Order: sequence, then C-alpha cells, then structure tokens
Amino acid sequence: MPTHVTDAPTLLSAVVMAEQIRQKQISPVELLDAHLTKIERLNAQLNAFVHLDADRARTTARAAEAAVLSRKALGPLHGVPISIKSSIEIAGLRCEAGTRLRQGFVATHDAPLVSRLKNAGAIVLGVTNTPEFLMAWETDNLLYSRTNSPWDLDRTPGGSSGGEAAAISAGMSAGGVGSDGGGSIRVPAHFSGICGLKPTPGRIPATGHYPVSAGPFALLGVVGPMARTVGDVKVLFEAMQGADDGDTCAAPVPLHWPSEDEVKKLRIGYFEDDGRTPVTTETRTAVRTAAEALRRAGFQVDAFRPPRLEEARLLWHKFFVVAGGMLLRPMTKGREHELSPILKQFLEWSAAERPHTGESLLDAWIRRDTARAQFFVQMQKYPILLCPAAAIPAFRHGERSWAIDGKTVQYLDAWSYTEWFNLLGNPAAVVPIGQSPEGLPIGVQIVGRPWEEERVLAVA
Amino acid sequence: MPTHVTDAPTLLSAVVMAEQIRQKQISPVELLDAHLTKIERLNAQLNAFVHLDADRARTTARAAEAAVLSRKALGPLHGVPISIKSSIEIAGLRCEAGTRLRQGFVATHDAPLVSRLKNAGAIVLGVTNTPEFLMAWETDNLLYSRTNSPWDLDRTPGGSSGGEAAAISAGMSAGGVGSDGGGSIRVPAHFSGICGLKPTPGRIPATGHYPVSAGPFALLGVVGPMARTVGDVKVLFEAMQGADDGDTCAAPVPLHWPSEDEVKKLRIGYFEDDGRTPVTTETRTAVRTAAEALRRAGFQVDAFRPPRLEEARLLWHKFFVVAGGMLLRPMTKGREHELSPILKQFLEWSAAERPHTGESLLDAWIRRDTARAQFFVQMQKYPILLCPAAAIPAFRHGERSWAIDGKTVQYLDAWSYTEWFNLLGNPAAVVPIGQSPEGLPIGVQIVGRPWEEERVLAVA
Repeated sequence: MPTHVTDAPTLLSAVVMAEQIRQKQISPVELLDAHLTKIERLNAQLNAFVHLDADRARTTARAAEAAVLSRKALGPLHGVPISIKSSIEIAGLRCEAGTRLRQGFVATHDAPLVSRLKNAGAIVLGVTNTPEFLMAWETDNLLYSRTNSPWDLDRTPGGSSGGEAAAISAGMSAGGVGSDGGGSIRVPAHFSGICGLKPTPGRIPATGHYPVSAGPFALLGVVGPMARTVGDVKVLFEAMQGADDGDTCAAPVPLHWPSEDEVKKLRIGYFEDDGRTPVTTETRTAVRTAAEALRRAGFQVDAFRPPRLEEARLLWHKFFVVAGGMLLRPMTKGREHELSPILKQFLEWSAAERPHTGESLLDAWIRRDTARAQFFVQMQKYPILLCPAAAIPAFRHGERSWAIDGKTVQYLDAWSYTEWFNLLGNPAAVVPIGQSPEGLPIGVQIVGRPWEEERVLAVA
Repeated sequence: MPTHVTDAPTLLSAVVMAEQIRQKQISPVELLDAHLTKIERLNAQLNAFVHLDADRARTTARAAEAAVLSRKALGPLHGVPISIKSSIEIAGLRCEAGTRLRQGFVATHDAPLVSRLKNAGAIVLGVTNTPEFLMAWETDNLLYSRTNSPWDLDRTPGGSSGGEAAAISAGMSAGGVGSDGGGSIRVPAHFSGICGLKPTPGRIPATGHYPVSAGPFALLGVVGPMARTVGDVKVLFEAMQGADDGDTCAAPVPLHWPSEDEVKKLRIGYFEDDGRTPVTTETRTAVRTAAEALRRAGFQVDAFRPPRLEEARLLWHKFFVVAGGMLLRPMTKGREHELSPILKQFLEWSAAERPHTGESLLDAWIRRDTARAQFFVQMQKYPILLCPAAAIPAFRHGERSWAIDGKTVQYLDAWSYTEWFNLLGNPAAVVPIGQSPEGLPIGVQIVGRPWEEERVLAVA
C-alpha cells in the first residue's frame, strides 16, 4: 500500500472489520465515519466515487449498530462499508456507466447481487467511476472526468472498474463489485495492488448491469468481487453467487469450498508470456514467484503454455471490438458529439474493421464454443493456470503503447492476457504478487475451469 | 400400445427389466434375444434401426449375465437393451444423421452419454433412423428411407428422433436417446405414445452429437432420454446427466430428486392452446385430463397461458430456419442433388427468408436472452407448465398442413408448442395421456424452469 493511505481502520480487511464489529471492538457507525472521512480526504484527488450515499449509509450503519447491541444474528459482512461500480443498479443511486447519454439516470431497484450484499450486512457507500460504456482499460469520461491511481496520480487505476480499484486500494471502501468483459476487474485489480475475481458467466447474476448482459456480451462479461485480500474476495463471492432468472447463463451450481487435500491435488500449469505479446521482466518474475510459492506449499507446478490462446484472442476481438462497435453505434447515433475521446477512439478502432455479416458472426459464435471445448479438455490435466494479468503495470493516463524487450506492445494486446478468459468463460482471479521498478504493484492471474471459482480462490 | 406388439418381455418397463435381471428372473441374454427377435419380426415394416450391433450386444449380454451370476454390483440399467439415435457417436456404429453426405461414417469413440449408459449397464442394440441432418418432424431419408409408426404404418412416428420413438414404442428397444432442437424428442414421443425429455442445454452432454452442438444450435438443441414410462426416463436421465467439457452449456448442477412435499408445493399453470395455432379437440381434452389428474393428486393447478410465446416462436424461427439454412447451405454445397426431398424443402423455406445480417443475428441473440429472463421470472409463480406437445397427433407420411377448427395449420406451426422451449431453454417432458378418434396416442407436455428436470419428471 502507498504510505499516505495506510491509516487504520479503513485498511483492515473486510473480514477483520466484520469480526471486529461482531466482537464490538468497533461499531459500524465508527467504521463508516472512518471511511467517509477517508473519502472526504482522498476522493478529490483520486475521483473514485461518483455518487456518495452518506445519509442512507449512516442510517444503515446505525441500524447495524443496534443489531450488534441487540445480539441479532449478523451476516458475514455486517457493517462493512462497500462500493459498487456505477454500472450496477442500486435503488436511489446513479447508474450512468460513465456516459452523458445516461446522465442523471437513477436506478429504482437493487440488482440481485446488491440485495444479496445488503442481506449479508454490507453497507453501500456509493458508486464508483468507469470509462464511458465501460469500453476501456482506463477510467476517464465526460461526466466525471478521470480517476487516478492511489499509487501514482499520474497513472490510471485501470478500467473499466477503475473507480472500484482506486477506492478499495486507497481504503475508501472495504471491497466492492466490478464487471469484466475483457479484463475490467482483473486489470484494475492488478494495476491497483488489490484482488479481483472474474467468475464464470452466470455464477454471480449480471442482472441489473448496464449495458445489459445479453447476446455475446452475456458470454464475455460478468460481475465479480474486488477487495484487498483473497479472504475478502471469498466472502463477497459467497454472498453474491447463486442463480438468478435474469442472468441467461445462470445455473444452480452449489457453493463448494474444497478441502485442503482436494486443493493440494490440483496440478498447476504456469506460463510467463504467450509468445506473442511480451511482458515486463518484473511481470515474469511475479509469475515465477507465485509458481515457486505454490510449489513450496506442496503443489505440483509445471511450466505449461496452453495452445489456442491466439485463437481465443482473435475471437474475443470479433465479439468485443467488432460486435461491440455494431451495438454501440446505433446506441450513440446522433449524439456522437457527446461521447468521450476514449469511447470515440474505441469506435474508430471498431469502425476500421469490417462489421460482422450474418455468416461471420455465426462462424465466430460456433468457433467460440469449439475453442472452449478444446481448451477445457486440456485443462483436465491442469485445472489451474497461472499467468500474467497484463503485459505492463499501471500506465500513465492516455498512453496507448509501450516498449517491452524492444517490441512495441499495443493497447488492446496488453490485455490479451485477460481477454482470453472472457472469450473462454473461465473464472480468473488476480492477486498482487510483485512490484515494478517504479514501485507499482504487479498482480498474477489464477485461472480455473468453469464454475470452479472456489478452487481458484483456494489456490489464490 | 398397439396390440400387435404387446408380447412380453420386450414391453416391460426398463426399470422392471433391470429388476428382473437383478432378481435372476430373466437373464440379459434372454432379454437381448427377445429384443433381437422382435427387431427381426418388426423392423422390416417399421424401419426404425439403421445399424444393428447384434454380435457385440450378445457378447455384452453374456458378460452381463456372468456379472449377475457372480454377484457383482450391478448398474441401474444392467442388461437393459437400448437404442441410440444415429446422430450420436458410438464407437463402431454408423453416425450418419440420415444424410448421404456422411454415408458410411462410423464413429471411433463413444459420446460421453453413451459411455455413461454403458457404465450403468445398458446394452446398445444399435442406432436408429432420422431425417436428413435431423431437420424434420418426420423420419425419411435417401440412405434408409422412411420409418413408419407402429400405431399405423401409413403414419410417421415423428422426427427427428423417429427411429427411436418407433423402436421403443414397438418394444424393439427398452429406451434410448434422441435429440431435440425444435421438438425432435417430444414430437416423436407424442406421436408414438411414449415418454421423452428435452433437458436444459448442458444438463446431459451433447458432446459427440452430429451436427455439432455449437453456436445457436447449442442453445436450441439438446440430447435426452426416451422410454415407455416416466420411471424409465428418470433412470436414463440420471445415468446420462452431469457436466462434460465438450458441451459449451455444461454446468456442474448436482442431481436433486425433490421430496413429495417439495413436489406438491409446485404450482402448475396449464393452457390448451396458444391462441394462435389451434389444436385438435382431443389434444385439449388431454391437457385438461392431465390438469385434472394433477389437481386430484393435490396440486394447485390454474389456467395460465404465459405471454411472450409468440416472440419465442419467431426467435426460434430466426435461429432454426434462418440460421440453420445459412449453416446447411455451405455444408451441402455442390451435393444438392444428393439431398432428400424433405431437406430440400426445408432449405427452400429457409432460402425464402432473408439470411441474417450481422445486425439481425446480434439482435435475435440479444432478444433471445431478454425473452428468457422475462419468461423465467413469470415462471416463478408457475414453475411447472402443462400444454399440448403439438397441434395434431401423428400425421400421414408427407402431409404438410391440417385443418383444425376451420383453420389451416401449417407444418412448422404445428410444432410451435415444442419450439418455444427450445428457444427458451426450458426442460420439457412429454407423457402419453389421451387418444385421437383414430386411436392415435396424444402426449401432454410438462415444462419446467431451467435445470429443474427432476421437478418436471416428478410431476410427470
């Protein structure tokens, strides 16, 4: 953690906060106030929150305090202040997804995941910033402007769940929820030195997310927890998971935390790069460090670079960039002048590609399913994969390419390490492991087989 | 059952066969021989089997007999002779899907569902006839010609799992496996007086099915059990269900047979028609009979016709007919002269429609997901729906329209009652309930919420 934001109790883990509340070592009201003070102190420079709900949070915290004193049964997140990406519906809060086209849109209902978190006792502080329509790996828009990294204000906390990552990293929030269609939870977690989980589509309901989770974006995009520790991610995941009718990928898969024996039997394959997009030296080191730590912990860990990753990247591009542009163009038609430069740039990239014909979209759809089947079969030997979260650590605002090993790494390629698993539908977590020469955090990605989030988190 | 095919033991239920084998009241070899005799006697006129595996079945039956005598643990289908639709891979058997374009294709591996059935003790008799590429509701092709209904040789047993339905109905097989992308299990079950289950996509692996289950057809099309009793369907379902990496819709949903109390709490909604496509009087009567029987059994049963069915039909058409044609045309290009009249007709219908543009396919894909979410929410009140399986009972070979209530019902519309649930992804069973004036069986459809096959079968 950067030293200027390390004051207690806001940097305790969410699990410890909840425990201290249960033990009456801290009251929900005190904890909330500590967070609101932190927000007041830091949000001006970080610009993570876009809509605070301090009054309702205080009312809820007082009720939470009363519940503690009256010895009621308390949820696992009782009294813990959390934040939510402003692309997820919370009754009474803005859900604008960073676009002027939804300026002032206030949700009337809680998304199911929000109800579940509230039922688990969490207190929603407010909603956090995103790039416009979530289509970027940095966080800046015309509604609220730029979010800055608590590690270096000249750098981005990443995107699209950049407000979440900055808020959690800086201790303005104990944890929260992002969404991820191409790395939007994992890249900000990696950039900001926190943990994040992109689940299997359907495991946590994407119901109430904007843009609506449907069509190809229901396969690529998911909602998932972000927090400072893996333990916190586990608790958030457990509270939010479970089928919901509004999520087209839902299935009633029961929660199953594996035993230590079960976990230790998981063979782990790791790779430092994909042979196409180079990663920084410290990124390689971070992957090796994680592999070595797991080996010392008793796992069998082998160097293993799965084939077909490049096919996954190309197919991801056909959905996210090509089909994404086809969906965004009619949504933004006639209001192009109100779009942020970052979204305009994305639309230009998309417009430079041939839009899908019926045949090309059918072909991509079928090849996605075939590629998945082949990839999952090879994961029978390695049910857990370790690899970089991205080619680089947090970049300076606006950068679009980087030199690594004498090669230029382009913006979209830098995130190919996360994009694969959106196309393939694997659950994937990021945990902070290493550090760049500038002192920036470096996360490592832990990838599991579909619906095996618990194994991913157990290894993490 | 038609009287000419009622001789024991081939018309016992599969469950009773397995029980008698366990009790040594009948030997697997005797039971197999009874089936082979029946096949020898009836298959010439019914033309259900297209590839018999008598030698291997005999070898397996002798081993099964030895296992009984040596008091080994026996699977739930130990020694039960079954059949499989010739669109599912079985090592050493033809998997031609009724097309000259695959003439002579012999699979080298068992599909996972076949391995599972064999592990449960079932003995595969052979594979059964289908229309070309499975794209019809009757069963006729240039490879093997027409399959006839055991109820009336001038009529079809339905399609595309028509060979299965005829074999099982006539007692040439104790049960088996079909596939269903628009009613292809349920319509033949209904026409042939047997039971069938179309599961949720992914519940039983479609791995090893031809055409490959991918893209839109992975959402519409599934594999599922067919048998003479609901009890048999349950055992077959239980043996085959469970996630497999080759099925893109797979999820590790555990088997859960509900308690009687749990079942009785399920509110049932029924409708006799959809207000668009009329059904025969006896079809209505069958639905009412089923509703009344369930009411007497203690269920709450209300008249309820869910909205949005017409949207589901139109979307199904966009995938099955429009996208289906777009996929079939390149697959059959240059060999059009080898195609069967039924497939040519399907391709003509498809060619009469505008093929999908990228935009129209994206739109249909997104609307499918949205329609599902809305439909499932309304099924929270009625988790079980009862409705017709089709507008009509088994038709005469080659018929393409029928007069009902002074209205002409067209071929594709007659199956709209099953098509909806392919688009929506609900599990749906058919059980025989009524009879037409000609003495033909009439099945009723029982529809559940996704992944709730056990509830559907418990009500059935």
